[in-house]
Amino acid sequence: MSGDEAGAVGHERVAVLLEALPYIERFRGATVVVKYGGNAMVDPALGRHVADDVVLLRAVGLRPVVVHGGGPQISELMARLGKQAEFRDGLRVTDAETVDIARMVLVGKVNRDIVSAINVHGPLAVGLSGEDAGLISASARHADLGFVGDVAAVNPTILERLLAEDLIPVVSTIGSDAEGQPYNINADTVAGAVAVALRAEKAVFLTDVPGLLTDVADPTSLISAISTKELEALVADGTLRGGMIPKVAAALHAVQQGVGSAHLLDGRVPHVVLLELFSDEGIGTMITADPTGEPS
Amino acid sequence: MSGDEAGAVGHERVAVLLEALPYIERFRGATVVVKYGGNAMVDPALGRHVADDVVLLRAVGLRPVVVHGGGPQISELMARLGKQAEFRDGLRVTDAETVDIARMVLVGKVNRDIVSAINVHGPLAVGLSGEDAGLISASARHADLGFVGDVAAVNPTILERLLAEDLIPVVSTIGSDAEGQPYNINADTVAGAVAVALRAEKAVFLTDVPGLLTDVADPTSLISAISTKELEALVADGTLRGGMIPKVAAALHAVQQGVGSAHLLDGRVPHVVLLELFSDEGIGTMITADPTGEPS
Amino acid sequence: MSGDEAGAVGHERVAVLLEALPYIERFRGATVVVKYGGNAMVDPALGRHVADDVVLLRAVGLRPVVVHGGGPQISELMARLGKQAEFRDGLRVTDAETVDIARMVLVGKVNRDIVSAINVHGPLAVGLSGEDAGLISASARHADLGFVGDVAAVNPTILERLLAEDLIPVVSTIGSDAEGQPYNINADTVAGAVAVALRAEKAVFLTDVPGLLTDVADPTSLISAISTKELEALVADGTLRGGMIPKVAAALHAVQQGVGSAHLLDGRVPHVVLLELFSDEGIGTMITADPTGEPS
Amino acid sequence: MSGDEAGAVGHERVAVLLEALPYIERFRGATVVVKYGGNAMVDPALGRHVADDVVLLRAVGLRPVVVHGGGPQISELMARLGKQAEFRDGLRVTDAETVDIARMVLVGKVNRDIVSAINVHGPLAVGLSGEDAGLISASARHADLGFVGDVAAVNPTILERLLAEDLIPVVSTIGSDAEGQPYNINADTVAGAVAVALRAEKAVFLTDVPGLLTDVADPTSLISAISTKELEALVADGTLRGGMIPKVAAALHAVQQGVGSAHLLDGRVPHVVLLELFSDEGIGTMITADPTGEPS
Amino acid sequence: MSGDEAGAVGHERVAVLLEALPYIERFRGATVVVKYGGNAMVDPALGRHVADDVVLLRAVGLRPVVVHGGGPQISELMARLGKQAEFRDGLRVTDAETVDIARMVLVGKVNRDIVSAINVHGPLAVGLSGEDAGLISASARHADLGFVGDVAAVNPTILERLLAEDLIPVVSTIGSDAEGQPYNINADTVAGAVAVALRAEKAVFLTDVPGLLTDVADPTSLISAISTKELEALVADGTLRGGMIPKVAAALHAVQQGVGSAHLLDGRVPHVVLLELFSDEGIGTMITADPTGEPS
Amino acid sequence: MSGDEAGAVGHERVAVLLEALPYIERFRGATVVVKYGGNAMVDPALGRHVADDVVLLRAVGLRPVVVHGGGPQISELMARLGKQAEFRDGLRVTDAETVDIARMVLVGKVNRDIVSAINVHGPLAVGLSGEDAGLISASARHADLGFVGDVAAVNPTILERLLAEDLIPVVSTIGSDAEGQPYNINADTVAGAVAVALRAEKAVFLTDVPGLLTDVADPTSLISAISTKELEALVADGTLRGGMIPKVAAALHAVQQGVGSAHLLDGRVPHVVLLELFSDEGIGTMITADPTGEPS
Repeated sequence: MSGDEAGAVGHERVAVLLEALPYIERFRGATVVVKYGGNAMVDPALGRHVADDVVLLRAVGLRPVVVHGGGPQISELMARLGKQAEFRDGLRVTDAETVDIARMVLVGKVNRDIVSAINVHGPLAVGLSGEDAGLISASARHADLGFVGDVAAVNPTILERLLAEDLIPVVSTIGSDAEGQPYNINADTVAGAVAVALRAEKAVFLTDVPGLLTDVADPTSLISAISTKELEALVADGTLRGGMIPKVAAALHAVQQGVGSAHLLDGRVPHVVLLELFSDEGIGTMITADPTGEPS
Repeated sequence: MSGDEAGAVGHERVAVLLEALPYIERFRGATVVVKYGGNAMVDPALGRHVADDVVLLRAVGLRPVVVHGGGPQISELMARLGKQAEFRDGLRVTDAETVDIARMVLVGKVNRDIVSAINVHGPLAVGLSGEDAGLISASARHADLGFVGDVAAVNPTILERLLAEDLIPVVSTIGSDAEGQPYNINADTVAGAVAVALRAEKAVFLTDVPGLLTDVADPTSLISAISTKELEALVADGTLRGGMIPKVAAALHAVQQGVGSAHLLDGRVPHVVLLELFSDEGIGTMITADPTGEPS
Repeated sequence: MSGDEAGAVGHERVAVLLEALPYIERFRGATVVVKYGGNAMVDPALGRHVADDVVLLRAVGLRPVVVHGGGPQISELMARLGKQAEFRDGLRVTDAETVDIARMVLVGKVNRDIVSAINVHGPLAVGLSGEDAGLISASARHADLGFVGDVAAVNPTILERLLAEDLIPVVSTIGSDAEGQPYNINADTVAGAVAVALRAEKAVFLTDVPGLLTDVADPTSLISAISTKELEALVADGTLRGGMIPKVAAALHAVQQGVGSAHLLDGRVPHVVLLELFSDEGIGTMITADPTGEPS
Repeated sequence: MSGDEAGAVGHERVAVLLEALPYIERFRGATVVVKYGGNAMVDPALGRHVADDVVLLRAVGLRPVVVHGGGPQISELMARLGKQAEFRDGLRVTDAETVDIARMVLVGKVNRDIVSAINVHGPLAVGLSGEDAGLISASARHADLGFVGDVAAVNPTILERLLAEDLIPVVSTIGSDAEGQPYNINADTVAGAVAVALRAEKAVFLTDVPGLLTDVADPTSLISAISTKELEALVADGTLRGGMIPKVAAALHAVQQGVGSAHLLDGRVPHVVLLELFSDEGIGTMITADPTGEPS
Repeated sequence: MSGDEAGAVGHERVAVLLEALPYIERFRGATVVVKYGGNAMVDPALGRHVADDVVLLRAVGLRPVVVHGGGPQISELMARLGKQAEFRDGLRVTDAETVDIARMVLVGKVNRDIVSAINVHGPLAVGLSGEDAGLISASARHADLGFVGDVAAVNPTILERLLAEDLIPVVSTIGSDAEGQPYNINADTVAGAVAVALRAEKAVFLTDVPGLLTDVADPTSLISAISTKELEALVADGTLRGGMIPKVAAALHAVQQGVGSAHLLDGRVPHVVLLELFSDEGIGTMITADPTGEPS
Repeated sequence: MSGDEAGAVGHERVAVLLEALPYIERFRGATVVVKYGGNAMVDPALGRHVADDVVLLRAVGLRPVVVHGGGPQISELMARLGKQAEFRDGLRVTDAETVDIARMVLVGKVNRDIVSAINVHGPLAVGLSGEDAGLISASARHADLGFVGDVAAVNPTILERLLAEDLIPVVSTIGSDAEGQPYNINADTVAGAVAVALRAEKAVFLTDVPGLLTDVADPTSLISAISTKELEALVADGTLRGGMIPKVAAALHAVQQGVGSAHLLDGRVPHVVLLELFSDEGIGTMITADPTGEPS
């Protein structure tokens, strides 16, 4: 590269950094919970992008927390072990062996891969299960479902300690009850509950769609920003339906309980977290408590 | 129970507590690394006993750290997945898939079970892999063995933070290199290295034998206390041989690098850790830096 | 002792420690004010037992504070100095010389003996008079009684500092007014007031009776647990009378002002404090704020 | 802007941020002393650029300190007040009135303008004179020069306090002696001495040339990186001469006393500080302690 | 001096120190804002006295903050620069050049002289402008007056940090708006606002009169102590008039917003601050919140 | 008093305070151990003066520690109790009953009176015995003397904690051995040892003579300042003899072990401590490590 070209690149770099400055200043010290899932987690390249994004968030002064599930990976190991997955109302029926497998995959495989991808940058990430230090107390969702859990309580102390040490917690969504019995819990639900417990500024949900669409068939119908009240109306009148409903519920719950904003982002877009947080345009759907919040 | 009987029980309890008082005072604030393995880890009842012991150590002011391996459990999952274990010179040849399985079992199953057994007492334990926050840097032991690792360095910061918060770290012996590649490392080695890095007062190794025997066939030949110099002589002259050698090496290394004492205990004896630490007799082998150390 | 016998003793010890674990965990960090008096203070062996108990409480994580009086010892020195004790309504008339003698005995003799008995275990105890650092502000109880004082105010700062340093404060019940005039104050009253000021979990009063008896002549009529409301009723209807009334008043006051529970224990029973705190049965009378409190 | 264009811009921004990440991580917590002077200080636009750069350094975790002089501004006010500047050996002869004027201009005008430019971003900068809290102790350079000072000592405590509060100190190069007499001191010298006292990682000197040139007439003769030993040789053999010598001396001194690297940069290039610190190419001259340091 | 004479001097010194003891104890840790102005600031000897007083206040445990203006010095430099001062309703019309001059004089000259006079005693004082770290946010008082400012808000964080470091802040009364535009603000107003923001115990205003006089012509009509209510009445009925009104308004505002007392003192009397604070008689006017406050 | 007179008094007061300022600044934070004894302790008025002095030292930023004995008071109570004092080589033979009496008098009477005299000024003083928190470990001086002790070790932790809380420790010179047996120790010896352990700047010994006299019969032969070397010479050549020798030994020991200076002062002179510390002339004998120390 010639000196001039190098200079041009350098100047562009500087220009971008300076454009990012107001965002960096605005979010300094803010806690951001990133629910990591879907394709972003299956595609290794996308996974590295999310890791990079999370490291950058920390580098410029935010306090990211990663929450992840891993349904497909659980199913895969179950298949290899010749165990038949059984679903009821869309929820995996989870017997003792299944929750053991789920825990092994989430804590011992998916969590580890995220921690490793982050720690390529330095000794930054610490993997946690919801069982650690009483982080997530679980209760059974329904007797028929076995060890499928609900969040009974979140004790965020261990997260706060790690954040205070400038570390990045990565949380597997296994909770336990008072007897130490593990439960597998929906990761969106956990991410929302953790964001509330940490009084986070932002809860970011990675999905496999561009955000909320008023017409699923039409990508240009993306809702960039919406208030909780408006969003509840869209759910009530049936405009929003199907697979997004649980994610929407977790996001609504988080904002209604005090999280600054929730973001539904397309995890298939490389570096979508940075794109959403460090530009005015945003590229997914931002949910805020009142109609006139900051643009997504 | 009659009032008198209750009184008698009560008085006995008090007598025991008061007898334990000098030990409690002597070990106040001491860090103790407990290498957990062998039968103690396979038998659920023994496992609960170790968990109880560790919780009690913390309750009376010590700072326990648990380090564990899990060879049999790894072999079991490999078998279920139809993967043949291959050993060379007693070490498992570990290809990429095998280290993935080992990690899944250690971090996602064995570690979790220990954490759960402890956390029945309260939100006390936090599971860690050596990959977390740069805890254990690993290097390949030998090209032929694949991802079998040696301890290249221990960064005990995350352990010190958790201990300072009065938590009990439980460490799986997976380390990683600068690229994030995981390695499976011998648990005795890790326990010794962690004890050194933490400047621990004691390193306790649970085994399936009563301690060091000068004659393997004769349980009455138990060595109660021995100095590092004497122990090196016994290794040199062939008195000690076979499976205990790696454990002895880890214990020797720890004491020579500044750990107050190392203890080889019979993990098959319920509550063996408390028995060793809270009575003058001791019941295993204590290794100290000089011939006139405190009795095991 | 044979190895087997030693083993048996060891196992019993461990069993007791583990039975104590729930109590240790429940009371971790709790402040306990122990009013030391009566026979326990006159009999040197009992005195050593109380010192041992207090040291053990601290060793397992509680924060004990000892408060003591010393009527008999004051009377003894007065007799040796040929000074006639004069009582009015059961209270010693206290002229300037008498309060000087009382202070000398309490601060310079009784307090010292308690501190010494504790410090045999290490540099743990610090003797204090209520005059130190403004701990107890006193006012005259009645003009006719001279320097017999009431507690006007308790400034617990010095106690909190010493407790924060893991020390055991031993308090003589001398208070002073703004001019520095010392007053002799009833030790039960001071113990209750100090417990309230420290927001203690427990206030323990050592007496020379087994606890509260509904029939003084019948030791089997011991009340194990009672609520403040029930206790007030027993006082009102005359069931409780006589010498216990002042102690009962101090205990009631403490619990009504926020102390978790008050305990009236028989100081003649060796290690009665531990027996009460570390067993479910209890052996004295526990007073709590509501009828369904934890069993004494 | 169309969505696609916005997306393209966003992706570019993210790419730049990620490229900057290694620099941000490498310099996290590093102290950087920026000597601000020459054209960068006279041209308001360039001044704003330097302010922006300094704010961005802080935003991504560095700890910048600004040191400035202001010869031209001093001359201007002297001219308006009809006071003749007198120079001896290139140094301004400084009588009592002149040092008063210099101080007024530096502390009351130049410093203030820098502070204002920074504080447009928030309450970040605090202006200091070397007289504040004993920051710079001065001694007279030469009797003939009046109140032209040398740095006798730097007490960096006040700077460390402000940096610990996440503030940006802006230092005017007035020092004082024990009697409170102010002296005007060369700003390059002060910047170097302050960097040494703070054990800074970097000392950056803004100049009006591209850096060190082996041939002043040939901009392509720029030295990108040089060790202190090599630099001393170039000074000794006369390759480097003239106006750069004092700046070179301050830079050499800083690196020889432990500052990680010194940088001579062209203050006429917008955002030159960021360009140097956040790209591999660098654009000025970097001086390090040994020949194989990191590239400028 | 003979030994006896020396002894006599010594004893007198001790007597005075002991008389001062109750004042020292009463004011320990108290924040005192001293508005420095008028003749005390123009006469160098008086200036040194104020500096001495402030140093002594700190030495005996108070926390002094100095606030100063400097109208005469501003006028003088304007005259030297041939710039005509224009006043409207007693306020200087302040164009961009004038505020630049005012800032240069206040921050670069008057502030520096005060800091120097204090720092003869050690590295104690730190000069600040209201622009530093967002200390004083200003807004324009009236469009016709240009950059004459009102206090929009005080952010006392930087002052609290410096006080916590045992330093003496010296504040020039320049404020700035969000764009960094400086404003010149009345020093009495700033002193009152700073005292309120710091929740100071005392705000001391140095003037060129003995205090409040009910009859300006009669020095014996001095009001030693007055409540805010009484003072408001004297203003309302016209007893107080003229130049003191702004100072009275600042003092009233401070006390009404929670400052313990305001003091109007004669800055022409050497060491008037100490005379007022360390004697029962007082020598100026003390304003307190209620009629029965402590005597001035 | 007329206003003018009041003014005159005020001005004088201010003058004295300002003269004291350099001393206050020089001694800020310095630890001063005051050995209190002799007439100063028997005469109540002198006792109040010492208390006042100590309070003033603290008020202006020093950290005083009081150490006291009380031979005459011990003898008095022994006489009242009909116990014969027996001396051997000038040391009281101390049987178990005698040490009990000594402790009662020192800790319960003399210490209390000093604490009370100080606490008239506020909750400042805390009485301690050397037995508290392991402050003074004692050993028997000689088998024939019973419980007359030597200082075996000083553990100053409790003193440092109290000083850090801005409290004034008052220490009775009772030490104890590992079994808790109390010993009576010479107070000069304890004062010196405590000063060394605290790394005090000054150790002040109150006596009943004006200081060191080269001719005991001639008060004008007072030595104002002397180095340890010179002082050792005067002892060696017999110039100094008799009762001062033990005090001189304690002072020498303190200075030789690192205490800044030792002072032998006439406790009969009111406020002699302040007179010595806050005037250039001094009035007793100051002992420093080298011949050219600061004047007494």
